[in-house]
Amino acid sequence: MKICRFTIENQIKTGVLENQTIFLRDNNEKTNESYRLDEVKLLPPVAPSKIVCVGRNYAEHAAELGNDVPKEPLLFLKAPSAVIVDGDSIVIPAQSNQVEHEGELALVIGRVCKNLTDDSASLEYVFGYTILNDVTARDLQRADVQFTRAKSFDTFCPLASTIETDLDARDIRVTTKVNNVIKQTGRTSQMVFSVEFLIKYISRQMTLLPGDVIATGTPSGVSRLQNGDVCEVEIEGIGTLSNPVVNA
Amino acid sequence: MKICRFTIENQIKTGVLENQTIFLRDNNEKTNESYRLDEVKLLPPVAPSKIVCVGRNYAEHAAELGNDVPKEPLLFLKAPSAVIVDGDSIVIPAQSNQVEHEGELALVIGRVCKNLTDDSASLEYVFGYTILNDVTARDLQRADVQFTRAKSFDTFCPLASTIETDLDARDIRVTTKVNNVIKQTGRTSQMVFSVEFLIKYISRQMTLLPGDVIATGTPSGVSRLQNGDVCEVEIEGIGTLSNPVVNA
Repeated sequence: MKICRFTIENQIKTGVLENQTIFLRDNNEKTNESYRLDEVKLLPPVAPSKIVCVGRNYAEHAAELGNDVPKEPLLFLKAPSAVIVDGDSIVIPAQSNQVEHEGELALVIGRVCKNLTDDSASLEYVFGYTILNDVTARDLQRADVQFTRAKSFDTFCPLASTIETDLDARDIRVTTKVNNVIKQTGRTSQMVFSVEFLIKYISRQMTLLPGDVIATGTPSGVSRLQNGDVCEVEIEGIGTLSNPVVNA
Repeated sequence: MKICRFTIENQIKTGVLENQTIFLRDNNEKTNESYRLDEVKLLPPVAPSKIVCVGRNYAEHAAELGNDVPKEPLLFLKAPSAVIVDGDSIVIPAQSNQVEHEGELALVIGRVCKNLTDDSASLEYVFGYTILNDVTARDLQRADVQFTRAKSFDTFCPLASTIETDLDARDIRVTTKVNNVIKQTGRTSQMVFSVEFLIKYISRQMTLLPGDVIATGTPSGVSRLQNGDVCEVEIEGIGTLSNPVVNA
């Protein structure tokens, strides 16, 4: 199922998207009440209490920025105020001359997840999968050492408009294009730390709450975004996240 | 006024604390309906969408950890899942052998704050001030470089139970004690970057939302917390934040 969140008549609702029709969800169940996709405004599919990101989780991407693969997952947080949805503009702030895309598989937590001791149960805590562009001001990331500022500008966290609840995410292709030219491509099977491991690991550092998002890292091929570009992240079985780029 | 948040009969309410009485707030106004402090359970006074912290904002503290004072504020985020309230236990996780206190003045944002151009208007965006203990696993902070994990374990963000809305915070004492022995002490006038500057600066990196918390940095004197300790952070004009320490 493709779960979405939307506004209609100033109310926030969740639904199941099927072709161009959204069926309202009530108590987590699909109802018969429906809307046409073109009569609603889609929102980011979730409003996370936190967005936990994993750095350097594809060996080639770690190498392209001159870094080793970490021994343990490298965690950082993006501010939830950075979230935008498919179609919204990525805004390049005046502070940066090098804003780059990082297309990533993201997962959405479905229930409280704390101190897991075993990878094998991890997937029970996943509500579904979505697409996240971990937009990064590379120049500020280098200058600050801490990733926070470089990755938390408003609009720096595009999310696809749907969460796919039925997906085997162990070996799917993640592709990022700028102006229709492929820049990044990789398969999730190339991750240094698997989705199952990451959920267990993060749950031992901090409690994950329903709606929290984990971004699983980006393949190699990051490149600079400029005013007028269109950046698309495509993930097999989920769809495409497309955002135009504008200067502040 | 001292604003608090509490539960009674399974409902979350906000109130104004006067001595041992809590007057219910409705539409941001104090009402005549009241509760005795001992009949409610106090919650953290706010549920922030993000907690933005400023590192190395007192020169002596930067020096004690071998760091220079940064040219611009050094920002990082703590996970909101780390928040506990006065009286709750700080839990030392098995992963760390060096968990330390960092007593800090924190401010709570009152209205949407984005792209301020001038320090002078900053304080209009402040709802009030509270006390925050930026508990840190120093060994993991050193090992990870990124501060996220070291500062986001559950219970690593104690907040005082009230927000003081009437306070001139420019030159007040911040004192942290462990087992009644003073460890850290400083005055907010010693901050490298003032509250006014920090609000403007952060608002230019990310939109601040009502309820968001900014932690303004810690004076020198950080030290290790151990099972059985009681850590108190006292700020002139606000009160005391006291938390026992236990092993996981």
